[in-house]
Amino acid sequence: MRIDEKRFRADFEALNQFGKTSEGGVNRPALSLAHLAARRWFREQIEQAGLQFQMDAAGNHSAFLACGPEGAPSLLIGSHLDSVPNGGRFDGALGVLAGLQVLRSIQQAGLRLPVNLELFDFTDEEGSLAGDFLGSRAFTGTLDRDLLEGALAAPESTLAKALGGAGLSLKSILGAAAEALPVEAFLELHVEQGPILDDEGVPVGLVDVISGKRYLWCSFQGEAGHAGTVPLEIRRDAFLGLADFALRATRHVATRHYGSFVTIGKARIHPGAFSIIPGRADFSLDFRSRSPKTLAALETELRDLAGEIAATRGLRFASRLMDATDPVIVPERLRIVLERACSARGYAHLDLASGAGHDAQILAAAAPTAMIFIPSPDGISHAPEESVRWDDLEKGANILLDALALLASK
Amino acid sequence: MRIDEKRFRADFEALNQFGKTSEGGVNRPALSLAHLAARRWFREQIEQAGLQFQMDAAGNHSAFLACGPEGAPSLLIGSHLDSVPNGGRFDGALGVLAGLQVLRSIQQAGLRLPVNLELFDFTDEEGSLAGDFLGSRAFTGTLDRDLLEGALAAPESTLAKALGGAGLSLKSILGAAAEALPVEAFLELHVEQGPILDDEGVPVGLVDVISGKRYLWCSFQGEAGHAGTVPLEIRRDAFLGLADFALRATRHVATRHYGSFVTIGKARIHPGAFSIIPGRADFSLDFRSRSPKTLAALETELRDLAGEIAATRGLRFASRLMDATDPVIVPERLRIVLERACSARGYAHLDLASGAGHDAQILAAAAPTAMIFIPSPDGISHAPEESVRWDDLEKGANILLDALALLASK
Repeated sequence: MRIDEKRFRADFEALNQFGKTSEGGVNRPALSLAHLAARRWFREQIEQAGLQFQMDAAGNHSAFLACGPEGAPSLLIGSHLDSVPNGGRFDGALGVLAGLQVLRSIQQAGLRLPVNLELFDFTDEEGSLAGDFLGSRAFTGTLDRDLLEGALAAPESTLAKALGGAGLSLKSILGAAAEALPVEAFLELHVEQGPILDDEGVPVGLVDVISGKRYLWCSFQGEAGHAGTVPLEIRRDAFLGLADFALRATRHVATRHYGSFVTIGKARIHPGAFSIIPGRADFSLDFRSRSPKTLAALETELRDLAGEIAATRGLRFASRLMDATDPVIVPERLRIVLERACSARGYAHLDLASGAGHDAQILAAAAPTAMIFIPSPDGISHAPEESVRWDDLEKGANILLDALALLASK
Repeated sequence: MRIDEKRFRADFEALNQFGKTSEGGVNRPALSLAHLAARRWFREQIEQAGLQFQMDAAGNHSAFLACGPEGAPSLLIGSHLDSVPNGGRFDGALGVLAGLQVLRSIQQAGLRLPVNLELFDFTDEEGSLAGDFLGSRAFTGTLDRDLLEGALAAPESTLAKALGGAGLSLKSILGAAAEALPVEAFLELHVEQGPILDDEGVPVGLVDVISGKRYLWCSFQGEAGHAGTVPLEIRRDAFLGLADFALRATRHVATRHYGSFVTIGKARIHPGAFSIIPGRADFSLDFRSRSPKTLAALETELRDLAGEIAATRGLRFASRLMDATDPVIVPERLRIVLERACSARGYAHLDLASGAGHDAQILAAAAPTAMIFIPSPDGISHAPEESVRWDDLEKGANILLDALALLASK
């Protein structure tokens, strides 16, 4: 069996029209008009292929292939059709479209398996509405109810509007997990979103661990004042506290926890004028590690570091945990299956960690999960310039096909 | 002669109603409805006092007291009735209202002098529309035409709207200086906006130098990327460049140019998301010194430092000069007059520099200028909590009165 490469390309061309941007990417935040249009198109493809379209109470779309006995557990594949604002064409879409080719191939081959197969397009993987992984978290019953209620209660809540527009509600989303059928395993094909495979010239990556992460929203509070009258040595400049923290936190992670990550991607200075000393600096803190122990240590160490800087500089520090996902180790059993699939086709492969989070990480709460990566040229991700080589894309889809068939027939 | 303290307080109470905020301050950005209302009230006071109301082509309002021969040069006093957004009640207003009491007292005393007197309320001292000191710069013919044209050409230009609403135009403003009569000297009474007089318990400050300043709008450009996939050691994180610069620039100024100031009051990170490495960090850079030499050196040194940091971190640095005022040294002749006024009344006084910019600094291009400060309790400025002690306020106004009379009669 092979996937139909012509069809695969044609599907991409069709899908890329939804939310297409002038810069060459797509803009399909979850439940936006472009995203909903992409999902309608996806549903048509499912139905035209003679697969069974399903939608759960969290708005996750799926294509069900009843190739096994009724009531048998399902083997799941999939990813997501939503994108970050002004994102790329392949992040998420690759796993969904490859999954569609895979189901078509298995269906056409008339394979009878001991399990059924189901391809998912999970809702809001990118977290446009209320934290990452809304759909897969709903599916696995791991949603944070407080976070959702907070997002719904916010003035002009985008979540409330989007849910209403899609016919969903907090109640339906929180109840989605109860409907889910038993899952045998989950496989996700995705672009790497980093430079390793491209640098090494290897077409396939087999993920051994998906990093865990913490999102904190933090604040240094000092005292505003006139930029021309308050001497430097008596200032309590909140931005200088943030600057100090940014440099020292980066050094700390780089030297003490090599291979882990820390990023300050967002900052707001108050009151925010040329001639006013910053009285407050709010900022995001994202840190990641493949080790649960390091992740927990980092949370303590980074808060302590911020507290120490605050004390030295006459500031106050506060932080609030916004999101948390734990590292997931891919079971050896699944990795062996993926390695066999690569060997059989003669594709070089590399074991690597996923620094980005994925639905697969969330699905791990419900079933063994594994991931296949293909190279991201220059490591570009979450940007219109994100690309893939068609050759790699077809290799990845064929590995997904073979691995699924191997897993299913065991 | 003394100013009428009861009247002075009543005037403040009346003026504070215009743009009054719930936090106890005023919100009177230049040419806003609240500012225009305050100016109408001021005009009524001028006319009721039997002074001559005048408005120049830059919208500067003034009260003319013809106490000297026709065509004689004028001695100017004044400040501004506009405030920063959500500012305090005394910054600017103090100099205008004290000036009004001073003119009333001289008029009532029937003083005949060799000069005429004129009290100014300059337009947009706080730079809400197009850089600081629009009115005093227009008056002295030191406007930056490019800056104004840029501000007018901006989409939804607040300047264009405000000028239109006040019956002004670029042409009228640029022509205002040509109308100005010869000026003998300019005196400005102002709150200190810093903590020195309050800390020292001295009611009057005599400014010996007004600091010069530079406003630069700067940018570090790096490369955006995924916060979970790009290793720390290969990142080109624009925000870390800014953090490094903020700390090193502060240390540089504090250690090499003690007494000068540097402030980063505004920053914007792009694209600005939890999980995206900052690809660009734009920020404001405000630095000040009482020495023209230091100011020029700082411009070079800070740009060099930023360039060095950019080179080390794989970033690019760019900057644009947005505003510049040069330091002004108060002529000894004027300081001696002010000292004599203090001595005559038995008021303790302190020589000090003004770190903030003032209309007096701009007027220095046209005439000798001097400034009198009164204490700002706790140094609070540009905030609703800004305050003064009534006792200090009356002392300041009386020194203005006496100094003006001394200067005029010389």
